[in-house]
Amino acid sequence: MQVKLFDTTLRDGEQSEGISFTVSDKIKIAKLLDEMGIHYLEGGWPGSNPKAVDFFNAMKSVKLKRAKMVAFGSTKRHGNKASDDVNLRAIVDSGVRVACIFGKAWDFHVTHALKISLEDNLELITDSIRFLKENMDEVFFDAEHFFDGYKKNPEYAIKALRAAEAGGVDVLVLADTNGGTLTHEVEEIIRVVKTKVNTPLGIHAHNDSELAVANSLIAVHNGAVQVQGTINGYGERAGNANLCSIIPSLKLKMNINCMTDEELRTLTEVSRHISEIANLPHNNHLAYVGKSAFAHKGGIHVSAINKHSETYEHIKPELVGNEQRVLVSELSGVSNLKYKAEKIGINLDDKDPAVKELLKDIKELEKIGYQFEEGEASFELMLKRATGMHKRFFDLVSFRVINDRYAKDDYHLVEATVKLMINDEIIHTAGEGAGPVGALDHALRKAIESKFPEIKTMHLVDYRVRVLNSTDGTDAKVRVIIESQDDYETWGTVGVSANIIEASWFALIDSIEYKLLKERSK
Amino acid sequence: MQVKLFDTTLRDGEQSEGISFTVSDKIKIAKLLDEMGIHYLEGGWPGSNPKAVDFFNAMKSVKLKRAKMVAFGSTKRHGNKASDDVNLRAIVDSGVRVACIFGKAWDFHVTHALKISLEDNLELITDSIRFLKENMDEVFFDAEHFFDGYKKNPEYAIKALRAAEAGGVDVLVLADTNGGTLTHEVEEIIRVVKTKVNTPLGIHAHNDSELAVANSLIAVHNGAVQVQGTINGYGERAGNANLCSIIPSLKLKMNINCMTDEELRTLTEVSRHISEIANLPHNNHLAYVGKSAFAHKGGIHVSAINKHSETYEHIKPELVGNEQRVLVSELSGVSNLKYKAEKIGINLDDKDPAVKELLKDIKELEKIGYQFEEGEASFELMLKRATGMHKRFFDLVSFRVINDRYAKDDYHLVEATVKLMINDEIIHTAGEGAGPVGALDHALRKAIESKFPEIKTMHLVDYRVRVLNSTDGTDAKVRVIIESQDDYETWGTVGVSANIIEASWFALIDSIEYKLLKERSK
Repeated sequence: MQVKLFDTTLRDGEQSEGISFTVSDKIKIAKLLDEMGIHYLEGGWPGSNPKAVDFFNAMKSVKLKRAKMVAFGSTKRHGNKASDDVNLRAIVDSGVRVACIFGKAWDFHVTHALKISLEDNLELITDSIRFLKENMDEVFFDAEHFFDGYKKNPEYAIKALRAAEAGGVDVLVLADTNGGTLTHEVEEIIRVVKTKVNTPLGIHAHNDSELAVANSLIAVHNGAVQVQGTINGYGERAGNANLCSIIPSLKLKMNINCMTDEELRTLTEVSRHISEIANLPHNNHLAYVGKSAFAHKGGIHVSAINKHSETYEHIKPELVGNEQRVLVSELSGVSNLKYKAEKIGINLDDKDPAVKELLKDIKELEKIGYQFEEGEASFELMLKRATGMHKRFFDLVSFRVINDRYAKDDYHLVEATVKLMINDEIIHTAGEGAGPVGALDHALRKAIESKFPEIKTMHLVDYRVRVLNSTDGTDAKVRVIIESQDDYETWGTVGVSANIIEASWFALIDSIEYKLLKERSK
Repeated sequence: MQVKLFDTTLRDGEQSEGISFTVSDKIKIAKLLDEMGIHYLEGGWPGSNPKAVDFFNAMKSVKLKRAKMVAFGSTKRHGNKASDDVNLRAIVDSGVRVACIFGKAWDFHVTHALKISLEDNLELITDSIRFLKENMDEVFFDAEHFFDGYKKNPEYAIKALRAAEAGGVDVLVLADTNGGTLTHEVEEIIRVVKTKVNTPLGIHAHNDSELAVANSLIAVHNGAVQVQGTINGYGERAGNANLCSIIPSLKLKMNINCMTDEELRTLTEVSRHISEIANLPHNNHLAYVGKSAFAHKGGIHVSAINKHSETYEHIKPELVGNEQRVLVSELSGVSNLKYKAEKIGINLDDKDPAVKELLKDIKELEKIGYQFEEGEASFELMLKRATGMHKRFFDLVSFRVINDRYAKDDYHLVEATVKLMINDEIIHTAGEGAGPVGALDHALRKAIESKFPEIKTMHLVDYRVRVLNSTDGTDAKVRVIIESQDDYETWGTVGVSANIIEASWFALIDSIEYKLLKERSK
C-alpha cells in the first residue's frame, strides 16, 4: 500500500502556543522535511496571512528533492464566484501546484457558523474544488469536524465529501478538528465512509484526547492513503498528530514503505533540530525520538537488555536514528563520534588517546548543556583542535562591557572594550551597541578586521538563546546559538555559560574562527 | 460497566528518567490520588526495594477514603516453595491486602531469561498466585509481554493466563511491556483472549509507540475492567498509559462511571500538583489537563468560540477542572481583549476612549515583539494601569551593569548598581551575579526588600529568551519571559528590547509589581 506523508508543521504546527516561526525558520524546516522524504509540505494560508505569501515567494528559489509545497485555505465565501474569491485566488497565485482547502462537513456549523443553507454549502465545496483543480495539479479537501458531524448527521457529512468529489478532488481528508473522537469510532466511521465514496481518503487528527497517533494509524489500517500531522505533534491546544510517532509505526510495524530506511534514520535528528528552530525544549519522553525513549533505568531491564535487546525494546533504536542509553552507567559514544567526524571528512583513530580525551571532553560539555546539533561549526572546530588540525587565530586578553541606563531623558549607553593578542601583538578596541552582546560584537570585529579583512563578508543571521537549568532563575546557565552566513554558506556555533555575555562571546569567536579556517583551507 | 482505576505512579512511574520520590512524596501522592477516587494504588515492590517497605509501613497510619494499597512483585523463584519465597513473603508481610505480581507469558522469555521449561513456568504462576490468594484479599496477575508473546505463541500466552486462573487470580492484566503493540492488534488479541478465559481482564500499556492511551481505551471498549496507568504518563522510556487522559475519556465519552463528577473536576489540579511533587515542569500541551489544552490562538476559532464553545472544544474544560484561554496574539481584536479583561474582573467599556487607546498600545507592543500568551501578568498590569486601577510601586532612576573578563586566571566580575525612587525616597544598591541579569536582579531585590519584604516569598522558576528579528544579529530585539512563583501561584511577565539587559529588567519589574499588587488586593 502507498501512503503519503503530509506535514503541516508550518501551518497547523505554528498554531501551537509558544511557537512563532520567521520566514527563514520556515525555509529551514521545509528543507529538513524534504531531505527526510516527506511528500507534502503545507506552507501556510496565503489568503489570511501575509507571512505565508512571503514564505511561498522565498520558496520559489529553493530546490526541493521530492516534497511538494501545499497552499492552505478555505472554501470560497458564499455569494462569490470562485474565480473572484480573494482566498482562492491567493492559493492559485501562491505559485505552488497543490492546494488543500477545508470546508464544513457538520450541518450545525453550516447553519450556525456560516449561516447558510446546507445545499449552498455543498455548492461552495464543489465549486471551490473545481476552480482549484482547473488551476493546480492536485487538490485535497479537509472535511472539517468530519467525525463529530458524522455522528450527528451521517448523511450530510457524506454529502459534503461527495460534493468535493463532484469537483474532482484528489484526496478526501477526514478531519477530527476538535480531537475528541475515540479510536474505535474512527475505525467504525471510516469503514462506512469507504463504501460511500470513490476517492482516496486521508486523515487529519488532533491530540485533545491523546489519541491522534492511534486515530491516524487506525485510519491507515482501514485504507487511508494520506496522513496529515506535524513534527513533534506541534499544534494548537494539545497539538496535532505526531508524525515522528506515526512514520516509524507505519514503516516498521505496518510494512508501509512511506520513506527509505536511510531517511527514517534521520528522524530523531530532524525532530530535535526542528525543536531547536522552534526554540522549545525537546521532550525527552517522546516515543521513538526522545532522549529517554530507549533509556533503561530498572536493574532487571538493564541486565536483560545486555542479553537480548528486543526483550525491552520494541524496535532497534538505530532504525530511527536514536540510541540505547543505560542510565546507571553511561557507556556510549566512540562510534557515534566517528560517524560525525567522518561526515566532515575527519578520520578518527579508535586507539588514539586524543580521541578518547575528546570523547570525554564532549561528554563533559554535553553535561553542562552544550548541544552540537545546531552548533556543528563549533563541533568541527573542536574536532580539528583536538586532532591538531587547527590552532586559534587570536586569543582573548580581556573584555569589559558597561551598560548604563538613566530613566531621565531615556538615556542609555552600552559600551564594550576588547583586548586581543594576535601573533604576539596586542590589539585594544572599543565599540557600542544596542545591547551588551552587540557592543561586544562590534568591538571584536573592529579588533580583527585589520588583520583578517575577509570577515567583512560574513554576517550574523540568527542569534538564539535558551535557558538550560531555568529553576536557577536569572543565574541559570544559558546556551547561545549563533548562525552566521557569507556568500556561500551558513554555519552554526554554540556557547554555554551562566553569563549570557560570555556564552555569546564563545559562540561569536567560534563563528569567526570557522570563517577564517574556511578561507585558509580553500 | 464497572471499570477500576489502578495507579502505578508510585511504582512504574518512579522508573521515569528524572523522577525520584521520597517516602513523604509518596505519601502525599497517595493521599491526592485517594481523594480523587482512584481504586488501587500500587505502592512499590517490597521484595526488591527497601524504600517500598518504609512506605507501606508509613501508610499503615494513613487513613484512605476508598483506595486500596497494592504490593507489587514477581512470581516465586524456580525451586522455591511459595511460602518460603522471599519476594512473595515480602508482599504478604507488607501489611496491604492486595497483591499484583508479574509472570512470563512469552515463551522466549521463559526459556531465555528465566531459563526454565515452559511447564515449570506455568507451575510457578499457579503456585505463586494460590499462595497469595490464601493470604490476601485480592490478587492480580500482570502477564508480562503478553501481546508480543501472543503474536509469537498464542497457545502458550493463553496457557500462562490459565495458570494464573487455576491459582484463583482475581484479574488477568494483559501487559504491553515494550509498548510496541498497535491499537488494532490489541483489539484483535483481546477479542480472542476473552473467549479463552473466564477471569476479568485488565490492561497495562506503555507509550513507546504513543499509543498507550488508545490501547487502554480499546481494551476497555472490548471488555477490560481494570486500567493500569500513571499520572501524566510518567514511566520508563516514553512512559506509561496516562490516567489523566484515560479517565476523562472513560467517563465523559464512554459513559463509564469510574469516578464522581466532583472527583473528575479535581483532575487538572491533581495532575499539576503531582508534577510539582515530582519537580518536573507540567507539559502545557497535555490533553485535558495541560495549560494549553483549551487555549485558542487562531482568529477564526476565537470568534467561533464566543458563539458556541463546542465548536472547537471536545469537552467543557470545567468538567476536568481546566479552563478555556483565549491567547492574546497577533490576530486579536476588541472581543478578545474584553474576554481577557472579564476573566480578571475588569469590565471594559467599548466606547471608552481609554479602551481604544489600550487596544492600539497592545497592537503596537505586539508589533515590536511583545507576546502576552506567556506574559499574562504583564498583560493584566497593563490593563490595570490603563484603567487607573494600578500605579507603579517604584520608579527607576538609573542602573548600571559592568561585566569584566580577563583571560588570565579566568577572572570575571559582574556587578550591577540600581537607583530607585520609592515614595519620594531614593534607594541606591549594588549586587553581583553570575551574569548581568542575575547581578541586576540581586541589586533590585536588595533595593526593594526593605520596603516590601513580601517579595522574599516569591522566586523565579523560569527565564526564557527569544530573539525576534534575528537577521539583525547581535543587535536584534529580544523578548524575555520570566515565570515567577510564590506559595500559591505562578505568573508570567514579558519584556522586549534590543538590549537583553533592558528586556530582562522590564520583565523583572513586572513580576515584582504583580506580586505586590496581588498582596495588596487580598
